[in-house]
Amino acid sequence: MRDVAIIGIGQAPVGEHWGIGIREMALEAALEALRDANVEHIDALYVGNMVSGEVTGQEHLGALLADALALNPVEAMKVEAACASGAAAVRVGAMAVASGMVDLALVVGVEKMTETLGGDTTSALAMAADAEYEVSQGVSFVALNALLMQRYMYEYGWQRRDFANFVINAHKNALTNPMAMFHQRVDADRYATCATISDPVGLLDASPVCDGAAAVILAPVQYARTLSPAPIRIRASAAATAPIAVHDRKDPLALQAARDSVAKAYRQAGITPGDIDFFELHDAFTIMSALSLEASGFAERGQGVRLALDGDITLEGRIPVTTMGGLKARGHPVGATGIYQIVEAVLQLRGLAGPNQVAGARLGMTQNIGGSGATIITHILEAME
Amino acid sequence: MRDVAIIGIGQAPVGEHWGIGIREMALEAALEALRDANVEHIDALYVGNMVSGEVTGQEHLGALLADALALNPVEAMKVEAACASGAAAVRVGAMAVASGMVDLALVVGVEKMTETLGGDTTSALAMAADAEYEVSQGVSFVALNALLMQRYMYEYGWQRRDFANFVINAHKNALTNPMAMFHQRVDADRYATCATISDPVGLLDASPVCDGAAAVILAPVQYARTLSPAPIRIRASAAATAPIAVHDRKDPLALQAARDSVAKAYRQAGITPGDIDFFELHDAFTIMSALSLEASGFAERGQGVRLALDGDITLEGRIPVTTMGGLKARGHPVGATGIYQIVEAVLQLRGLAGPNQVAGARLGMTQNIGGSGATIITHILEAME
Repeated sequence: MRDVAIIGIGQAPVGEHWGIGIREMALEAALEALRDANVEHIDALYVGNMVSGEVTGQEHLGALLADALALNPVEAMKVEAACASGAAAVRVGAMAVASGMVDLALVVGVEKMTETLGGDTTSALAMAADAEYEVSQGVSFVALNALLMQRYMYEYGWQRRDFANFVINAHKNALTNPMAMFHQRVDADRYATCATISDPVGLLDASPVCDGAAAVILAPVQYARTLSPAPIRIRASAAATAPIAVHDRKDPLALQAARDSVAKAYRQAGITPGDIDFFELHDAFTIMSALSLEASGFAERGQGVRLALDGDITLEGRIPVTTMGGLKARGHPVGATGIYQIVEAVLQLRGLAGPNQVAGARLGMTQNIGGSGATIITHILEAME
Repeated sequence: MRDVAIIGIGQAPVGEHWGIGIREMALEAALEALRDANVEHIDALYVGNMVSGEVTGQEHLGALLADALALNPVEAMKVEAACASGAAAVRVGAMAVASGMVDLALVVGVEKMTETLGGDTTSALAMAADAEYEVSQGVSFVALNALLMQRYMYEYGWQRRDFANFVINAHKNALTNPMAMFHQRVDADRYATCATISDPVGLLDASPVCDGAAAVILAPVQYARTLSPAPIRIRASAAATAPIAVHDRKDPLALQAARDSVAKAYRQAGITPGDIDFFELHDAFTIMSALSLEASGFAERGQGVRLALDGDITLEGRIPVTTMGGLKARGHPVGATGIYQIVEAVLQLRGLAGPNQVAGARLGMTQNIGGSGATIITHILEAME
C-alpha cells in the first residue's frame, strides 16, 4: 500500500450563489487546487455530492465535471454518503492512489442548495435519514438533532445556554476566514435570544443552507515531495457506520460510528487523542459538536459541553475546533463540507491559516458526519518533515 | 498493488416489484452473494445506484444497507456514474481491495424504478445528461439514442431492420435465464412492427424500466483460493469519460469513452479483442450495441451491425454478447446493471451458465455505459487455473 499525500487545495467562498450553477461552483475550487498543486494532468476525478439530483436536476457529476474541466478521458465518478459525501470521496481518492491504479487524483466536493428544482432543501436533506421509518413520520434533520439535544440535556443536566461557546467560537473564527459565509460576531446574549426552530434547537444551533465547493489533489507520498513544497500526509482514513435511524441505536448519544471511525483512525496513525493539535469536527448542530468530542476521546460521556464552557475549543485552547468557522459559520454545503474541513486542516498544517493559525500545528483531525450519525468518516493529516 | 478476485455473486430477479422496497431488493442480492462466498464478515460495502433519491426519496444507501444487512460498523458509501453506477461501484471495491485498506468488499448494485415519489422515471434518468444544455431542450434518453441511431443509419446506409438480431438474440438468451425480466421470444416480424417511440427507435430497441439488484464479493487473489472453490480474477478495470452532451462530441458515433476505456483494459490485461470469449455489452438501445462492438475492437466503424446480421453475436458465434439476455431482455435497473453483467460473466467463467453457457469461456469482458456515452467502464474477468 502506498502512503498518500495532499499536494493541492482549492475552495470557493461559501454563500448563497444565485448567479452561478453547480458546474461553475465546482470549477472554481477544482481549478484552484490544480493551480495550487501545479499539475495539469490528473488520472482520476472523484466528486463528493449529496443532493445534486434532487436540487439541481443533475446526476452524473463525475462526467459533467471531467468535461467542464477539459479532463476527458479521465476516470470520473460521484461518491455519496449523505453529509459525509465529501470525506467519502476523499477516502475513495486515497484508496485509488494507495492501490497504485491512480497516481494523481482530484477530489471535488460540491453542493448547490439554494436553488431547488422542485420540493425543498429540507426534504432533500431528509433523504439522509430512513425514508420509510423516520421521514414517513414527518421528521426532519433539525427535529432529529433536537431530540438528541433534548435527551443529552436531560441525561447530563445541561442547559441550552451551555452550548453557546460552540457557536461563539465558530463565528469568531469565521470573521478572519474570507471563504466563510458569515462574518458576524455572535455573543452569548444573541445566542440565547435567537428564534427556536425545533425546541431546544435555536437558529444559531444550526448550520446554514448554502452553496460551496472545495477540492484537493492526492498523490503518492513518494512523488509528493517533487510535486509540492509542502505536502501533507494522510496518516489515517477511516469510515464507519451505525444504524441509520436514531430509534434503532442502542445508545443514541454514544455516536457509535464516530467511536468506531476514530478508533480505526488512531490505530492507523498510531497515536492517541492527546497527539491531535486541532480538530475540524462536524458542527451541523451544536449537539453534534459535544457528541463528537466525547466519541473522539476528548471528553468523558456527557462532558463535551464542558470543553466549550472552559474555553478548551478556542484557537489557543487544549483542542481547537472549527478553526476556520466550522459548519456553523464557514457554512455547510453538504457534499462539500468534508473537503472544506480537509482544505482548512491543510492550511493549518502548512502554517498558512493566518490569524486563525493554531500555533505549532503538526497533526490535525477532520470528522465528517452523514445523517444523524449513521456514517462517520475521520481523517488524520500530518505536516511532512 | 494486490490483484483482486470475485469470490461470491448474488442477484435478484429483474422485474416490476411493486411489493418490496429498495432495501429488500438489495438485501436479496447481497445475502445471496455472502452465502455464495461463504463469508459472514466483510470490511466495506460499496453501493451502485443512480436515482434512489429522485425515485424513492432515499439517499445514504450505504448506511441504509450496512444497517439492513447487520454489518455495522462496516464502512459504506454509494457510488454514482449514471447508468454506469454498478461498474463504478465495483471499480471502487477493486481499488479498495487492491490498496490493502480493505480485505473483503461487498459491492451491491440496486435500482428501484417502477415506483416514483414525484416526477417520473424518464425525467430522473435524464439527469444523466447535461441538465442545462441538453435536458433544458426537452431531450430524453430515448431521443438522444434516436438521434445517434438516425445518424448511424444515414452515415453507413443501414436500415432499422438490420438491428433486429441484437434484440432477437437477447430475448432468446433470456428465455433460459430465470433472473431475466422477459421470457418471450422476439422474431424479426415482431421487431419490425413494434411501436415507434422516438423515430427510428422502436419499443423493442429500448431496454425496459424495471427493478433489480445484484452483488459481488471481492477479495485479494492471494486469499481468494482459500475462500472460494472458483474465484474469478479481475484482469482489468478501466473507466473513461467523454463530453457529457452528445452535441459536444467531435464524433458522436465514435463512442470515444469506450475506446479509451477498452484500450486501458486491454493494456492492463495484456490481451487483444481476439482473446475475449464473450462480451456483456450495454445494450440499453440497439444503437449502443453496434457502437460498443466497434469501439471495443470487434468491428470496423459502421460495421457493428454486421456482427448481428451475420450471427456472430450468438452463444455459438465469434463474439457472443448479452449471453443472459442483456439490458434488453434481462432488464436494465440502471445502478444494478453493471453488476448483473459481472455476475453473469462470473457464471460463464465458472461454467455454470447452464443452457446459456459459452463453450470453453475463459476470458470475459463487461462494459457499462453512463449517459449517452459520457462514462464507460470496462472490466475483463478470467477464470483462475
